[in-house]
Amino acid sequence: MGDASRGSVLPVHVEFGHCDPAGIVWYPNFYEWFDAASHRLAERAGVGLHALRAQGYVGLPLMQTGASYHRPVRFGDDVEVHSTVAGFERRSFRVVHRILRGAELMLEGFEVRFLGQPHPDDPQRLRAAEIPEDFRRRFGFG
Amino acid sequence: MGDASRGSVLPVHVEFGHCDPAGIVWYPNFYEWFDAASHRLAERAGVGLHALRAQGYVGLPLMQTGASYHRPVRFGDDVEVHSTVAGFERRSFRVVHRILRGAELMLEGFEVRFLGQPHPDDPQRLRAAEIPEDFRRRFGFG
Amino acid sequence: MGDASRGSVLPVHVEFGHCDPAGIVWYPNFYEWFDAASHRLAERAGVGLHALRAQGYVGLPLMQTGASYHRPVRFGDDVEVHSTVAGFERRSFRVVHRILRGAELMLEGFEVRFLGQPHPDDPQRLRAAEIPEDFRRRFGFG
Amino acid sequence: MGDASRGSVLPVHVEFGHCDPAGIVWYPNFYEWFDAASHRLAERAGVGLHALRAQGYVGLPLMQTGASYHRPVRFGDDVEVHSTVAGFERRSFRVVHRILRGAELMLEGFEVRFLGQPHPDDPQRLRAAEIPEDFRRRFGFG
Repeated sequence: MGDASRGSVLPVHVEFGHCDPAGIVWYPNFYEWFDAASHRLAERAGVGLHALRAQGYVGLPLMQTGASYHRPVRFGDDVEVHSTVAGFERRSFRVVHRILRGAELMLEGFEVRFLGQPHPDDPQRLRAAEIPEDFRRRFGFG
Repeated sequence: MGDASRGSVLPVHVEFGHCDPAGIVWYPNFYEWFDAASHRLAERAGVGLHALRAQGYVGLPLMQTGASYHRPVRFGDDVEVHSTVAGFERRSFRVVHRILRGAELMLEGFEVRFLGQPHPDDPQRLRAAEIPEDFRRRFGFG
Repeated sequence: MGDASRGSVLPVHVEFGHCDPAGIVWYPNFYEWFDAASHRLAERAGVGLHALRAQGYVGLPLMQTGASYHRPVRFGDDVEVHSTVAGFERRSFRVVHRILRGAELMLEGFEVRFLGQPHPDDPQRLRAAEIPEDFRRRFGFG
Repeated sequence: MGDASRGSVLPVHVEFGHCDPAGIVWYPNFYEWFDAASHRLAERAGVGLHALRAQGYVGLPLMQTGASYHRPVRFGDDVEVHSTVAGFERRSFRVVHRILRGAELMLEGFEVRFLGQPHPDDPQRLRAAEIPEDFRRRFGFG
């Protein structure tokens, strides 16, 4: 069984194209990295997209996201996205992401995600499944 | 003098490339639209990037951003980003964005921005200028 | 029946986030606009994605793309993507895109697309369908 | 002195957000990877952006780009972008990129770039510098 209780680390090299005319990372890119990091974390836990779909879920859609920016990240920087699941509600969970350059915290963010199921009344909509015990354990929540 | 006290509206047609394998808008794109909407709002207020630079500022960098997702937005949808400044602190202000499809609220978000000045001690860093009275008035804050 | 024989025009306002540290549009964005413009053109011809899927096609995938850059496009510019179908092969067609700022040609590009069908031997692959007479006529090819 | 005569390899993990509603990489992303790969290649040759700027150049802008798509690249794939300089003109050079999944060629592309200098008559424009002997040698051209 996958174990992501200790989180995951996604290294990112800051590309020219990530940066805006001010020479720093254009902020929507940070959310692109958060999303990639969450997929990495879910893979490590053994609940990546293919595994989830095999169980009848549609993925891990978003309820809420946010970020606080501490220091500008620049072209050529090598950073790491450190991600862990910080907690569970009955039908959602919170992933926290910290972007570090060496030991320096550049920014931090979060995503509240749910386990998506087709809505029984309307296939166009999704509903949030109750999070199974097994899913929590994979992220270190007993 | 520019007047953005009533906010701004940015129409967006949801393109194929905005959407992910689930067929809905990949969420970092919403932040791209928020950023474009804030530039539109600042232009309307007469404090677009060129005007700000002419006054010695470097732009309107971000302190914090966030969003809550209510309904999935799909390929082909026509939506509008409704943006207003919701309030000022001494050295920052909050822009709120509501994305509507017709009358339906699909998601809402915010950005806390500041008026960036080169830091006197270190040209690589920025500091948040005190927001001038004139700047507030342009967004309807007396 | 849709008629795109005279092409389509997609207006684009160049956003801050489209631009790179050199202050000009980062070139992959031009391809994003080409793709959006082709979808617009296909919609006008009555063969947008939903219409194609209803006929058992999977869309209009790419065989080849390219662009030549004449003048830099900058933050705040208002440009137009002028698109037409330039010709058909038996199993593909060529869309040409010209990006104009006023009367000035900034860059031009093309996409060779095909009408995608599930491959009979392997659902993971696609094959290029023979282009029906009706499809050609919608783009002004008799 | 940097030596990029043997080219460079940029590994890319295909993220969820790189993919479109058809479940395959949305093609403008390939150009994002080409651009990142060219920066990597230039770094290896010792003519990365910072080095170029220190010599009075503004970077390596594009004259032309293009790609041919052979096989669809999918979410979760691990691919490599293999890049080399294929040849020089007096004022431009051609970078070729091949994207491989294992030994399989998925697509190939190219970029024609030049060594950008501020135009003596108009600081808003760029001109293509004559490529110095030393620059060619770094990419294996004697």
